[in-house]
Amino acid sequence: MTTPPKPGASAELAPRTRAEFEAALRDMDRFYHIHHPFHIAMNEGGLEPAAVRGWVANRFYYQIQIPRKDAAILSNCPDRAVRRQWIQRILDHDGAAGECDDAGGIEAWLRLGEAVGLAREEVVDLRHVLPGVRFAVDAYVQFARTAPWPEAIASSLTELFAPTIHKKRLENWPALYPWIDAEGYAYFRRRLSEARRDVEHGLDFTLGHFTTRSQQDRVFEVLRLKLEILWAMLDAMWVAYVDRRPPPTLAAPVPA
Amino acid sequence: MTTPPKPGASAELAPRTRAEFEAALRDMDRFYHIHHPFHIAMNEGGLEPAAVRGWVANRFYYQIQIPRKDAAILSNCPDRAVRRQWIQRILDHDGAAGECDDAGGIEAWLRLGEAVGLAREEVVDLRHVLPGVRFAVDAYVQFARTAPWPEAIASSLTELFAPTIHKKRLENWPALYPWIDAEGYAYFRRRLSEARRDVEHGLDFTLGHFTTRSQQDRVFEVLRLKLEILWAMLDAMWVAYVDRRPPPTLAAPVPA
Repeated sequence: MTTPPKPGASAELAPRTRAEFEAALRDMDRFYHIHHPFHIAMNEGGLEPAAVRGWVANRFYYQIQIPRKDAAILSNCPDRAVRRQWIQRILDHDGAAGECDDAGGIEAWLRLGEAVGLAREEVVDLRHVLPGVRFAVDAYVQFARTAPWPEAIASSLTELFAPTIHKKRLENWPALYPWIDAEGYAYFRRRLSEARRDVEHGLDFTLGHFTTRSQQDRVFEVLRLKLEILWAMLDAMWVAYVDRRPPPTLAAPVPA
Repeated sequence: MTTPPKPGASAELAPRTRAEFEAALRDMDRFYHIHHPFHIAMNEGGLEPAAVRGWVANRFYYQIQIPRKDAAILSNCPDRAVRRQWIQRILDHDGAAGECDDAGGIEAWLRLGEAVGLAREEVVDLRHVLPGVRFAVDAYVQFARTAPWPEAIASSLTELFAPTIHKKRLENWPALYPWIDAEGYAYFRRRLSEARRDVEHGLDFTLGHFTTRSQQDRVFEVLRLKLEILWAMLDAMWVAYVDRRPPPTLAAPVPA
């Protein structure tokens, strides 16, 4: 009989090869929110318009926090070459002024909001954002602010799984939800190409930076956190829009 | 026709009297998690043992973060008189060494864990803690770290509603859950007296410190945040233990 492995023993295992590490990261897609019942229902046309609108309004909170997450990474990263790449994500979301004038992903999301029947104002003022969604998204920003910046970069690797999700929406939604204005789908189309480019950079960095076994193991923990955040967001939306039991504080007026 | 009130117009209203302010704060108990379906089921004996155990294991994460929340308040508070009062909360939870030796509330909660059939180890290592619960509790600690300390004190005022909840558990659980070892209830008994004392101090401070109308309005926002945190914790538990759909990452092994 051998003694059981001690805590930290995995550090002594040989590192995964680059190909093995990448394959194991890609295999984490089995935990991606595309498999959440809310998401499955959404992509099968099983949601009421109010639930689709709830998703768009809540997911907007994620959209507006992403540039702050990415700015936290820039702020923590002393490597100019990495920053030069990473800043593109902020420009993509916030939009770029000047020569390459682009309204950006957040604006595209607001148009999706209008396409599903939400007034721009009610999306922007966050009145529909569920506390459970806010806590999960804020945990992501907080992680990016406080974790070592390479881990924050690795946490973005759920992008590996995103092109599929955008592609399925573009394929399925027009037929499933004929009441949604097709102009609203511009966001999904943008992200289809952006996410592919982002993945290449984030994946290349992660595979090259985390090279010992224990460092690689840490990347799985970090990616798991991000997957938990996305999953928790949909749990909150399920309770509010499928079980129809939003928290009683939502939209309650200030006491007299 | 008068013009609609401008943002911030409430600052010009007369402040609530001390009695009105207290009554309005107490009235927020309608948003307390005692009214959450999970809690209602728990207090009616409607939960499976696994769900009761899930609640105890998840709520443990709240218990262990509370002293850190209170230490953040101490750390931000320049008022020695307030600190001398507030520190008692940390001593209550962590336990006090020396003359007044007391194992503390966290230890009492671990005994509740044992009473419901959880091994001490599986509570302490947090393996059952749901991501949605973690995000909500962490949001509370983060609020206490970053908000002005009087607001963090005000956020503790859900204690106003806590004695009722502990009392009901002590009254109902022994008959509803005969399989729970009655020794486990020591935590609820402790908190019944501690919470009453804490409320007096926190309430007195809040009523005296927030004196303008807009300051009073801010207290309702802060208390609402805390109520949302408690509610979101139970939403996550409902999904995991009543709907029986815990997140797929929970207890998943590290990839090979």
